[in-house]
Amino acid sequence: MATAVASAAQWQEQVADKRKRLLASIPSEWIISPVPDDQPNVLDVPKTCGLLTDRELEITNTADVSLILRKLATAEWSAVEVTTAFSKRAVVAHQVVNCLTEVFVDRALQRAVELDAHLKEHGTVVGPLHGLPISLKDQFPVKGLETTMGYAAWIGKVAEDDAVLVKLLERAGAVLYVRTNVPQTLMWAETYNNVFGRTLNPYNRKLTPGGSSGGESSLISMHGSPLGVGTDIGGSIRVPSHFCGLYGFKPSSHRMPAYGIVNSLDGQESVPSAIGPLTVSLSGVTAFVRGVLDQEPWRYSPGTVPKPWSQDDYLLKNHDGGKKLCFGIMWDEGSVKPHPPVLRALSRTKQALEAAGHKVIEWKSLRHSEYIAVARAAWLADGSEDYNACLTTGEPLIHSMDPNADPHDIPDFRIPRKPLTAYQTWQLHKERRELRKAHLDRWEATISESGTGRPIDAIICPPAPYTAVPHGQTRSSIYTVIWNALDSPSLIIPVTKVDAQVDVMPAREEFWSAEDKLIHGMYDVKLYEGLPVGVQIIGPTLQEEVVLGVGEVIEAALKNH
Amino acid sequence: MATAVASAAQWQEQVADKRKRLLASIPSEWIISPVPDDQPNVLDVPKTCGLLTDRELEITNTADVSLILRKLATAEWSAVEVTTAFSKRAVVAHQVVNCLTEVFVDRALQRAVELDAHLKEHGTVVGPLHGLPISLKDQFPVKGLETTMGYAAWIGKVAEDDAVLVKLLERAGAVLYVRTNVPQTLMWAETYNNVFGRTLNPYNRKLTPGGSSGGESSLISMHGSPLGVGTDIGGSIRVPSHFCGLYGFKPSSHRMPAYGIVNSLDGQESVPSAIGPLTVSLSGVTAFVRGVLDQEPWRYSPGTVPKPWSQDDYLLKNHDGGKKLCFGIMWDEGSVKPHPPVLRALSRTKQALEAAGHKVIEWKSLRHSEYIAVARAAWLADGSEDYNACLTTGEPLIHSMDPNADPHDIPDFRIPRKPLTAYQTWQLHKERRELRKAHLDRWEATISESGTGRPIDAIICPPAPYTAVPHGQTRSSIYTVIWNALDSPSLIIPVTKVDAQVDVMPAREEFWSAEDKLIHGMYDVKLYEGLPVGVQIIGPTLQEEVVLGVGEVIEAALKNH
Repeated sequence: MATAVASAAQWQEQVADKRKRLLASIPSEWIISPVPDDQPNVLDVPKTCGLLTDRELEITNTADVSLILRKLATAEWSAVEVTTAFSKRAVVAHQVVNCLTEVFVDRALQRAVELDAHLKEHGTVVGPLHGLPISLKDQFPVKGLETTMGYAAWIGKVAEDDAVLVKLLERAGAVLYVRTNVPQTLMWAETYNNVFGRTLNPYNRKLTPGGSSGGESSLISMHGSPLGVGTDIGGSIRVPSHFCGLYGFKPSSHRMPAYGIVNSLDGQESVPSAIGPLTVSLSGVTAFVRGVLDQEPWRYSPGTVPKPWSQDDYLLKNHDGGKKLCFGIMWDEGSVKPHPPVLRALSRTKQALEAAGHKVIEWKSLRHSEYIAVARAAWLADGSEDYNACLTTGEPLIHSMDPNADPHDIPDFRIPRKPLTAYQTWQLHKERRELRKAHLDRWEATISESGTGRPIDAIICPPAPYTAVPHGQTRSSIYTVIWNALDSPSLIIPVTKVDAQVDVMPAREEFWSAEDKLIHGMYDVKLYEGLPVGVQIIGPTLQEEVVLGVGEVIEAALKNH
Repeated sequence: MATAVASAAQWQEQVADKRKRLLASIPSEWIISPVPDDQPNVLDVPKTCGLLTDRELEITNTADVSLILRKLATAEWSAVEVTTAFSKRAVVAHQVVNCLTEVFVDRALQRAVELDAHLKEHGTVVGPLHGLPISLKDQFPVKGLETTMGYAAWIGKVAEDDAVLVKLLERAGAVLYVRTNVPQTLMWAETYNNVFGRTLNPYNRKLTPGGSSGGESSLISMHGSPLGVGTDIGGSIRVPSHFCGLYGFKPSSHRMPAYGIVNSLDGQESVPSAIGPLTVSLSGVTAFVRGVLDQEPWRYSPGTVPKPWSQDDYLLKNHDGGKKLCFGIMWDEGSVKPHPPVLRALSRTKQALEAAGHKVIEWKSLRHSEYIAVARAAWLADGSEDYNACLTTGEPLIHSMDPNADPHDIPDFRIPRKPLTAYQTWQLHKERRELRKAHLDRWEATISESGTGRPIDAIICPPAPYTAVPHGQTRSSIYTVIWNALDSPSLIIPVTKVDAQVDVMPAREEFWSAEDKLIHGMYDVKLYEGLPVGVQIIGPTLQEEVVLGVGEVIEAALKNH
C-alpha cells in the first residue's frame, strides 16, 4: 500500500514536471493575456490577442495549402516567417484550447533557415512540401524529443530515431514544430489524458474537438497549423475533422509509412490504424498524400504498399474524367438516425452533385453492425493487456471522457473482454473477409443502376450522427468504424454549419434502437448553433487518388451550387 | 472404442469410394499398359505408351507457354485439340505418378468448344489465356465439384461456387480440366495424404516431387499440364518447382485473388500463403500473372491489392532497362550449406550474369533463423486446432512423410505447441516488423556497392539446400520460408541438372549445425544424377513485375552463356 501511494505520488510528480517543461518550451513573449474561462468561442483570439502581426495573420489565415506552398516556393513568403507565424498562432491556440504536448520552435526555425538558404542558393525547392509547417499527433517520434502519447509512464521516453514519416516529411521540405494531444489509450473520439489534460473545441470550449486526433483538429481549426498528421483506427482523423470544420483523410492502412510510430494496440493487424492528414483545404490533403508517396515510403517502412501516386487515378481517367459520376448516398447506417444538420449536409451535397450533372442513388446500409462487432472484437482481443502494459507507474486507466464521471465507475463497454486466442482471431478474419466480400459484391452490383457503365464512383455518408458534442458525450463512432473494418479510404469535407433556423429536429415517436433514442435526445440546436458539419466520402481500398479526385468534384459542385 | 472402430471403417470406406470415383472419371480408353513399379524414371511414358498422337505429343511437348497461346490465338491449334492433348497426357502421368485428385475433361472440352466457336465467329480471343489448359492444386473450388484438399472428412464437399481465381481464369480464356494432389494439412514439402496417397517424382519415383503443390510439379514436369496454379506459405510452389525442373513463382501474399479458395490455417494472416503458377516456361509465369491482373481481381476478392500490371516495371524502366543490373548473391543462409549441384547452379548464374555485363555482390544472411522462428510461431499459434477441426471422421493426423515411419511416432517438431493468445500474436507482429525493417535497410544500404546508383535489383539464392530427395526425407524449407516471412515475391528458374562428374561433395570436418551435418550426409550423387536444379530470385514486396523482368534478364544471360 505504501508503495502504491509513493508510486501514485511519483507519477503525479512526473506529470507536474512534464507540464512545467512544456510551459518552459514556449517562448515567454508569446504568452497572451488570459481569456475568461467562460468564453466559449475562442476562434478570434489569435486576431484579438495582439501577438500576431498583420502579415502573420494573413499567412496563417490562408485557407488553401497549395497557395501557401506556392508563396513559399516563389519566396514571396520565407520559410522562417511562415514557421514563425504558425508557431506563434499554435502557442496562442494552446493557451485557450490546450492542444499541444511538445513545442520545438527552435528546431523548426533552424530547419526553416536552411530551407530559405537552399531556395536562395539553388532557386529550387527542397521538395514538394518546402517550408510547410506540419503539426504531428503525439505518436510520431522525433529524434531527441519525448513521445508521451498521453501515458504518464512514457514521460521521459526520448526517441532515438525519427519515425519514417518524420524523416520523409522533412526530406519533402516540411517544417515540424509542434506535437499535439490525444486521449489516453487513443481509443476515444475525444481528447483527454492524465498527463496533458483535456483539449477543447475552439468553436465552443464546452464541447469536444473530437479524438483521438483532437489536439490536431483543435489546433488546425484555430489556424495554428495548416496541416497536421493524425492516425485513425475507428474515426480518429475523421471525427475531429468533422467536429472542427476541417478536411480529414483516412487512407487505407498500408498506404502511408507507419514504421517507427508509437501506437495503441501495437501489433494488432486485424483492423489496424491508418495515418493521414487533417487540414484547412482539400489541396492540403492531396499535397500531403502525394508528397509522402513521392518519397517512395515503401523503401523504408515495411508493410507500406509500393504504389506510387497515380495522377491518372486522381484525374479520374477511368471515371469519365469526373464529368458524369454516380454516387451512392447512405443517409444512415440503420440503427441511429443522424441529427438534422448532418442530414442537411448530405442533402446539400446531393443537390449540388445533381445540379452539376452527376447521379446520386441510394446506398442501403449493409450488415454494418457486423463490421462494428468485428472491429471491436479485434481491438479488445488482448483483454486490455496492451493498455495495462502502458500503465506501469500507478496512473489509473481512464474509464470515461466525462469530466463529471466518477473515475471509479467502469461502464459496461470498458470492462475488459475475455482475451481471444490466436485461433479465435483467425475465425474473426474469416468473418471480416465475408463482410468485405459482401461489400465488394454490392458495390459491383450498382453497375446496373449507375447509368455510367461503371459501378458507383464513391459512397457519401455521415461522418457521425451529430456535430461536436459536450465533453464526455461522444458515443461509439459507428459511421467511421465501418470503413476501418473495410479498410476503405475515407475523406471528410466540411459542407455547412448548424443553423437553428433550419435544423429543426422533427418529432419522433418511434426509435430504431436505444442508441437512436439516446442520440436523438442529445440534440440541442442552441448549443450546436454555428458548429461545422461535414460529409464522408468513401472509395475502394488502396485507391486513395480516386477518392481525392472525387473529392475535388464534390468540392467544385458545392462551391458552384 | 466400438464407435472409433466403426468411424475408422467409415472414413476408409469413403476414401475407397472417392478413389473409385476418381478412377471412373478417367475415360477408360486412356488407361495405359502398366509400367513396372521398379522403373524409377517415367518421363518418357507419355511418348512410349502409344496413347498420344504425334500432333498431341508436339502440342504437349511445347515448352513455351507464349508459343502455345500464339498457336491457339491464330487457330493453328484448336482449343479442343490442345485440351484433349493435355487431358490425355495428364491422365497418363497420373497413372505413373499419382498426381490427380479430380478429372473433369468433359467440362473442359465443352469450354474448349465454346472458345473455338468464339474465335471462329469473332476472329478474336476470349482473353489473354484463350484456350490454355490450366491445372489447379486441390484448393481451388470449382462449382459442382468436390474439393477434398487431402482430408477424408472433406470427401463429398461439393462447391457451391467457383473460387474468384477460377472465375477470372475462365474469363481470361483458360480451360480448367484437372485438380492435383497435396499433402494432408498442406504444411509439408512433400505430397502424401490418406485420401489420394502419395505423389511421385517422374525423374525418379523413389523421390518426392516436393510439396505442398507436388501434384502440380509432378504433372507439369511430365507435360501433363503447361501451367498449374499452386499456393505457397513456406515454399509450396518453389520447392516442387525446383525439385521438378520448373519455373515457379510465389507472388506477394495480397497480389493474387484468394477469395473462395480452401486453405490450411484459414484466417491466419501473420505469415499468409500466396497464390502463384508452376509452369514449363518463364513466359508462362508472366502470362499467368498478367492475365489475372488484367481481370482486375481486387474488384472481386477482398484483400487483393489494386495494383494493375505495370509494363514499365516489367521492362525494368527504373532499373536501367535491365542493361546493367546488380544482384546480391546469398550462397547460404548460414546454418545449412547447400549440396554441390545447388551451389553450382548459383555459380553458373553468377558467371552468366557477369559475362552479360551485370554485377554480382555478396548478400550475407541476415537474421534468417529469426524469420523461420516467426513464421513457425505464426503457423502453430492455434496449437493445431485448425488441423484437428479438419479430422472429424476418425482419419489420423499424419506425423511423417516417410513411408517407413511408425504412424504412431510423433516427431518433436509435430507435437502441437501451446496456443498463443491474440496479444502474443501482436508481439509476434512487432518482431516480424523489426525483421522486415532490418531487411529493407540492408537492401537500401547496397546502394553504396552496387555501382548502379541503385540498391541491388534482386537477390539470388538457393531454393533449398538439396535437389529432390527420397520420400520422407525433406527437411524444414528454410531457404523459402525466409521470403514468406518477408512477403517477398520469389521466382524459381531451372538452371542445370545434377552431374556426377562435377558435383562432387568436398570432404567436410566441421559443420555449422546438426542440421547442416544431417543434410551433408543426405548427399548421394548416384541417386541424384540427372535431377533438375534451380535458383531462387527475390525482389521487393509487391513488385512482381520487377522480379519477372529480372528473371528475363537472368534467363537470357543463362541461355547466352
